Amino acid sequence: MATKADRVKARLPRGFVDRVPDDLRAAEKMMAEIRKVYELYGFEPVETPLIEYTDALGKFLPDQDRPNEGVFSFQDDDEQWLSLRYDLTAPLARYVAENFESIPKPYRSYRAGWVFRNEKPGPGRFRQFMQFDADTVGAPSVSADAEMCMMMADVMEALGIKRGDYVIRVYNRKVLDGVLDAIGLGGDENAGKRLVVLRAIDKLDKFGPDGVRELLGKGRLDESGDYTKGAGLSDLQSSYLLSVILKQPFLDSGPNPEVDRWNQTLDSNAAAQGFAELDDIHALVLAAGYEGRVKIDPSVVRGLEYYTGPVFEAELTFDVTNEKGEKVVFGSVGGGGRYDGLVSRFRGEPVPATGFSIGVSRLMTALKNLGKLDTSDNIGPVVVLVMDRDTASLGRYQKMVSDLRQAGIRAEMYLGGSGMKPQMKYADRRGAPCVIIQGSQERDNGEVQIKDLIEGARLSAEIEDNVTWREGRPAQITAKESDLVTEVRKILEAQAEDRANAAKAV
Amino acid sequence: MATKADRVKARLPRGFVDRVPDDLRAAEKMMAEIRKVYELYGFEPVETPLIEYTDALGKFLPDQDRPNEGVFSFQDDDEQWLSLRYDLTAPLARYVAENFESIPKPYRSYRAGWVFRNEKPGPGRFRQFMQFDADTVGAPSVSADAEMCMMMADVMEALGIKRGDYVIRVYNRKVLDGVLDAIGLGGDENAGKRLVVLRAIDKLDKFGPDGVRELLGKGRLDESGDYTKGAGLSDLQSSYLLSVILKQPFLDSGPNPEVDRWNQTLDSNAAAQGFAELDDIHALVLAAGYEGRVKIDPSVVRGLEYYTGPVFEAELTFDVTNEKGEKVVFGSVGGGGRYDGLVSRFRGEPVPATGFSIGVSRLMTALKNLGKLDTSDNIGPVVVLVMDRDTASLGRYQKMVSDLRQAGIRAEMYLGGSGMKPQMKYADRRGAPCVIIQGSQERDNGEVQIKDLIEGARLSAEIEDNVTWREGRPAQITAKESDLVTEVRKILEAQAEDRANAAKAV
Repeated sequence: MATKADRVKARLPRGFVDRVPDDLRAAEKMMAEIRKVYELYGFEPVETPLIEYTDALGKFLPDQDRPNEGVFSFQDDDEQWLSLRYDLTAPLARYVAENFESIPKPYRSYRAGWVFRNEKPGPGRFRQFMQFDADTVGAPSVSADAEMCMMMADVMEALGIKRGDYVIRVYNRKVLDGVLDAIGLGGDENAGKRLVVLRAIDKLDKFGPDGVRELLGKGRLDESGDYTKGAGLSDLQSSYLLSVILKQPFLDSGPNPEVDRWNQTLDSNAAAQGFAELDDIHALVLAAGYEGRVKIDPSVVRGLEYYTGPVFEAELTFDVTNEKGEKVVFGSVGGGGRYDGLVSRFRGEPVPATGFSIGVSRLMTALKNLGKLDTSDNIGPVVVLVMDRDTASLGRYQKMVSDLRQAGIRAEMYLGGSGMKPQMKYADRRGAPCVIIQGSQERDNGEVQIKDLIEGARLSAEIEDNVTWREGRPAQITAKESDLVTEVRKILEAQAEDRANAAKAV
Repeated sequence: MATKADRVKARLPRGFVDRVPDDLRAAEKMMAEIRKVYELYGFEPVETPLIEYTDALGKFLPDQDRPNEGVFSFQDDDEQWLSLRYDLTAPLARYVAENFESIPKPYRSYRAGWVFRNEKPGPGRFRQFMQFDADTVGAPSVSADAEMCMMMADVMEALGIKRGDYVIRVYNRKVLDGVLDAIGLGGDENAGKRLVVLRAIDKLDKFGPDGVRELLGKGRLDESGDYTKGAGLSDLQSSYLLSVILKQPFLDSGPNPEVDRWNQTLDSNAAAQGFAELDDIHALVLAAGYEGRVKIDPSVVRGLEYYTGPVFEAELTFDVTNEKGEKVVFGSVGGGGRYDGLVSRFRGEPVPATGFSIGVSRLMTALKNLGKLDTSDNIGPVVVLVMDRDTASLGRYQKMVSDLRQAGIRAEMYLGGSGMKPQMKYADRRGAPCVIIQGSQERDNGEVQIKDLIEGARLSAEIEDNVTWREGRPAQITAKESDLVTEVRKILEAQAEDRANAAKAV
């Protein structure tokens, strides 16, 4: 026992959480469903370690200006830098590059795992969180991107999210890069400005074209009085950019040689290919019957810097109440895109790749909101109370729990201090369906008492209803010790029936 | 694409591994079985993060003289030291201490998770590995320790390890501490010597009492010529120590006042309580019908420094062939013990605790050796070949895979480059049960070709047997496009029947 002075403080590090039984069971259920869909699409599991060489991960986190910002890193004893992975994509790229000859290509794989961000923690912002990714490497065509989107739509429905309550939105970095290039924002010297523009476009679904036009230009003052600095584009640039990505005719000016030049650039650069790819994705989605579930939407930008083509976002469209009591759209639960450069970093040949990442905790929160992660079918253990503490008695109690377990019934012997009251309180907190009691008198008679705790709970709630009382199962029965398993099973079955009836009644 | 000069090398950090599909599926199966047993015993899942404050983990690794040796550590931006956990016990102690009021006690919990050791990697020695632990906190009596041992015996049998092929060995640190104290090896000044003694006792099952007597004394020369330095005990000390833990009468000397004094100390110190606890564990194990499966055995020492009472080891007793071609006993797959001081470090009150940790990879290796982790029931996806690459055709192929998946059949459209040969090779490498072919001619007829690859493989192996050839299923059929799902299902069922027959024939 520690004295007060040398006592260590028991505390979680900032930005980390412990996960409790209900959450773990719910996550387990959810991830099994996701895995089923991935497997159905022919994806194979693979797992990489949580630690990689820092240079293998690269620097692709959004908004990170300083090196190693956002990443937990440490030096190995041979001086090499190691990092905790910040996503599952960069390690997959390393894995594919390292095992390129031995894996079948195209290579469809999936994996769930913890990732880490060395960031300032905030509400709902953790430094360790779980992602569940699927990736296809070695498939250059947008068929692979379309498949990703459709698979994610199937994942949403497999989890019980109704059609119409979710949408997989798709756009293409090539279009955005092409337009920015056309209006003169290409080149390294404009990297900062491009970032502000992309962040503005990301707000299209939130603020609409007019709000975004402000963010592209001088800036935007929102209702709460917060001011967001703009990207500083000219009105002509802003209008042109918006008309292109919204596919609206450009009406803002009369004949204008500058606009003519922009149009020419646009027709000959990546944007044209980007639009063609989006058309192909749309056609594939249509043919496979996913229209409306997968939608082309220019507001999809995605922060990570390694994306090179189509980018996706899985969004839940139903309203939830946020911590301020406001109704808001639930929003993104995952996303991804094409990252043709990530494997090529390691190799002397181009290796196309595309992938999707689900934010496990965020999706779990959503499913809880929808009541889709019920774990009330989890039954607590039968608790065998300890009435006598001599070794012979303990051996007998031990034998009872062994017999119950061998019959497949969750059971435990009480292991705490003595007294009837703490034992009953413990059984109650554990959600025990019943307790087994054998004092010296029962032992002499070769009997046990079985106390039905759920029936007891129901009776105490309905005590005024005398009919229920009389018709209810007895809350406590005396049984022959040799009938223990049979009698406990009867009680469990009766309780299961009660639960089924209650579920029907709702 | 990277030029040769700026190309990053794709390589796993030293001491880390990637995990491939068969291993992941096998681990999944194995862990589900372990979880079932833990749940049956009333244990509840809980998970802590992979990172903890360094001081919360403490320094309990075996043989680590320097601070932080063995642990991956790094400083947070507020200067506090963080570490990757090196086991699941120290974080559980932190969790229990932090949430002491809200958890039911005694608290039975389980968790699987990655742990990290910053050690020199070697063959079979990794720096990231998985443990699957169960712990009971708040139960002072050895009933909790006995339960741990019996549960681990049940785990072994649930995994298909036969009775007699495993044993859960138990001893007690109190006995060892007591004897060492009696023969004058107590006190901080003898800590190093005690460690050498414990390591010697650990070899009891390997070298027998005579070999250990050498290790306790001057040292031991093994058959290969390797010399191990001894602990430097006197002959009297060594003989006395061995006679006590082996429960043999001490015959080495006549009346001897020194031995009388040792006997007196032993009767009044922790050893007496240690022996009484072992007797209780034996009685409980006997009563619950686990005799022979759980055995008292003085060679169980356990390296970790936080153990304070009973210690356990799960050992597989069958022979395997090691990398040198020698037959050796498989050995330990897990262990644990009582650690009454670990939660108390954080609190002003004693908190008894006991636990067991399974080494997941090590146990998996054992089960593979026993042929208990068969994953041959995993079926590859049906591959729809891409004969035409126009968007309309791709849409049709996409529709076929959608239809198959909706029928619960694993299926994928080929996403790689063109040509029939690479597509067939791909399907073969993926273990596809069959491929779907629709060129323009089939399309015009509203038909598909279905090529049975498993039948094909069987036929090409048995080609000389003409009867088999004639009786075999046709390797390729033409079907109406609308019958695709039905016909594929027929092939899958026929293949499943073949597999079942083949399994029966073995």
